Amino acid sequence: MNKEKVNVAVVGATGLVGRTMLQVLKERNFPCGSVKALASARTAGQFVEFGSEKIIVEELISTSFDGVDIALFSAGSDVSRVFAPIAADAGCIVIDNGSYWRMHEDVPLCVPEVNPESIKSHKNIIANPNCSTIQLVLPLKALDEAFGLKRVVCSTYQSISGAGQKGLDQLDSEVSGEKTNCKHRIAFNTMFHSSYGDSEFTQEERKMFAETRKIMNNKDLRLAFTCVRLPVLGGHGESVNLELKSPFTLDGAKKVLSDFEGIVLVDDLANDIYPTAQLASGKDEVFVGRVRLDDSVENGLYLWISADNLRKGAATNAVQIAELLIDS
Amino acid sequence: MNKEKVNVAVVGATGLVGRTMLQVLKERNFPCGSVKALASARTAGQFVEFGSEKIIVEELISTSFDGVDIALFSAGSDVSRVFAPIAADAGCIVIDNGSYWRMHEDVPLCVPEVNPESIKSHKNIIANPNCSTIQLVLPLKALDEAFGLKRVVCSTYQSISGAGQKGLDQLDSEVSGEKTNCKHRIAFNTMFHSSYGDSEFTQEERKMFAETRKIMNNKDLRLAFTCVRLPVLGGHGESVNLELKSPFTLDGAKKVLSDFEGIVLVDDLANDIYPTAQLASGKDEVFVGRVRLDDSVENGLYLWISADNLRKGAATNAVQIAELLIDS
Repeated sequence: MNKEKVNVAVVGATGLVGRTMLQVLKERNFPCGSVKALASARTAGQFVEFGSEKIIVEELISTSFDGVDIALFSAGSDVSRVFAPIAADAGCIVIDNGSYWRMHEDVPLCVPEVNPESIKSHKNIIANPNCSTIQLVLPLKALDEAFGLKRVVCSTYQSISGAGQKGLDQLDSEVSGEKTNCKHRIAFNTMFHSSYGDSEFTQEERKMFAETRKIMNNKDLRLAFTCVRLPVLGGHGESVNLELKSPFTLDGAKKVLSDFEGIVLVDDLANDIYPTAQLASGKDEVFVGRVRLDDSVENGLYLWISADNLRKGAATNAVQIAELLIDS
Repeated sequence: MNKEKVNVAVVGATGLVGRTMLQVLKERNFPCGSVKALASARTAGQFVEFGSEKIIVEELISTSFDGVDIALFSAGSDVSRVFAPIAADAGCIVIDNGSYWRMHEDVPLCVPEVNPESIKSHKNIIANPNCSTIQLVLPLKALDEAFGLKRVVCSTYQSISGAGQKGLDQLDSEVSGEKTNCKHRIAFNTMFHSSYGDSEFTQEERKMFAETRKIMNNKDLRLAFTCVRLPVLGGHGESVNLELKSPFTLDGAKKVLSDFEGIVLVDDLANDIYPTAQLASGKDEVFVGRVRLDDSVENGLYLWISADNLRKGAATNAVQIAELLIDS
């Protein structure tokens, strides 16, 4: 491909993440040649924004990838399952935001600040991790390199935007006092993600276990996850208790975190300064605060992590992978 | 006192908790003789509901407790500090929902299902624990008795109603799109409680450490808390990871929990049945679900706990203490 004029396609261009992908490509001055917006027949013919331009949405068909160098997919597992191999066979490199390919052994699962080397072995499909996993692995990697990681206990505080436009619409309706047919209200309530057969863990929790181990390249990493959906906009939060292998000081841990690429330390409780969903909203970094020594265990540490789930948790990470591809 | 006609006063009767105390006294058919509603001069003269009756609110003064057997306080720390000893000297037993007396060594801190024996040594002041602490210690006690408790990691998901009417008003205003002067938005956001001097732990977190150890009668209990405020109504949630001393089975742990007085087990993820704030709202029990083995540590267990913070977390627990007093 011509690395100064990369022909890009966004699959699922009318969705929350797809629209954010187009926005982030523009903001980061990705060296786009042509830009194609692809979606199902249902939304083909609509227009989506690419900076000040309006791009017409085309129907996704098997020949859509002719002449496309990089395709960012965010159209659900079924579309990725069927169309990612078609695109890959056409010589296009797929960066897939869905869950279908993430655990495939031939598919790198990449967070550029954490495991950029993973993409070297790609076979034209690279997976973008789950939003909650992405924001977690940056501080995990920073602390693992410095002190060694022994165990991670994480409870998430996830924006309903993770359920896409449908989730936002449910929240809007319920806040306005409308009745919906949903089993659990999201407005002013807490709920969990969908289950997975008979498993006692939700689909979201299972993704976090598998993906964190793959990205951290440690299949024995001791992990515990509880994932919760909230009537929150703009970002996901994570409350994390770590056990590290080596002793460390609080200042030492804070320095390791703030020195790591992609992390911004925001940690001044006395002045009510800490990461929130609102703070993370619209930003590309991972915000870490509430860093405290946890004296209930040897080498224990608390963290609070906030990031914009549609940007760093999805679109921005995908575009960063595309940037890695053209830089390598 | 005449245990069939107990003269009761509610101090702070116009607040969220005070009004709930009156409601719970009525619902539980507490054997009230007279019922006094007390508050500051600012709200004296208003009426509050006691079942179908309207009671006029009287100004709280030093003679307010003459002839009162039991006074339920929920009017803030300053009022408790000044007026609880005045009431106690007048022969009235104070059940105080504020934080001022909780850690005083002469003051029992009681959750009736957990440490009913603690009230025997009272000197006319008994403290009601913090809302988040109350709902936590029921499952902790159940599991400690059965398997021994080694370490507790808890992240809270707290209703903004914990900040009283002021918190609810802020949420209302922000949901309606109004600007407030608050440092952190609560609508559609996550935030933390206030700090405490230079401590890296919030006031709420510090309460949970101290109170949990006092109620569990174990000053060395290994605890880790992160407390979070959410745009949630009706109840607090808690994501808990436990390490227990003895081996157990998942079914064994569930049985111990569901057999414990005051706990309702709601745990069928495959059918999307689990405790939520909405489920707990208006109820007096502590709801436990998402019970899972945590294989990241020896004898590890996950729990999710929901309870109505104004009821079991405050008013109901206080009325249950009053019931203990007249039963003993």
